[in-house]
Amino acid sequence: MIKVTILYPNIQGSRFDHSYYLETHMPMSIGLLGAHPGFKGVSVERGLGGAEPGSPPAYLALCHFLFDSVEDFLAAFMPHAALLQGDMPNYTDIEPVIQFNEVLMAR
Amino acid sequence: MIKVTILYPNIQGSRFDHSYYLETHMPMSIGLLGAHPGFKGVSVERGLGGAEPGSPPAYLALCHFLFDSVEDFLAAFMPHAALLQGDMPNYTDIEPVIQFNEVLMAR
Repeated sequence: MIKVTILYPNIQGSRFDHSYYLETHMPMSIGLLGAHPGFKGVSVERGLGGAEPGSPPAYLALCHFLFDSVEDFLAAFMPHAALLQGDMPNYTDIEPVIQFNEVLMAR
Repeated sequence: MIKVTILYPNIQGSRFDHSYYLETHMPMSIGLLGAHPGFKGVSVERGLGGAEPGSPPAYLALCHFLFDSVEDFLAAFMPHAALLQGDMPNYTDIEPVIQFNEVLMAR
């Protein structure tokens, strides 16, 4: 299983609309990507703080999509890439860090 | 629910022993932290690549602990902090990015 991780860095002066992200963008993303049989799960988080008490989080928001394979994710995502990426300015001006991971352990 | 995210940046020339991490460090961490009633789950991933085909991942390894609350995590972790942090040089010389997150959606 693979995980696609999307991290929005906590950049000073940047804009991130958590309500739009959670209530509009993510339901749309899940509706489109979740229809693919390789879709296995999703989680969304909001950064609370860093390891040191009172320190800011490195990332404002985090999103993880689980798929059977990278190929499955791309097959699910590519047909909707323009729509989903085009929605990003509606909630943020932050360039996310995106990476593909192999899931080694999940319980 | 909260998630504690531990990210090991992909720094050129750095050292990360995935076998030791997965087969020794993580089982020890899970054995110690998983005994707390607030423990809800864990996942471990290995970075495969970035969003651009052929690009390196931003993080070599990622670990996520789910707990009922930050207080529960700290209660579980603090008694074993010295042991767990002391084991880190056995698999890496990378300083991880650690942050606490509120889980907004998980399915």
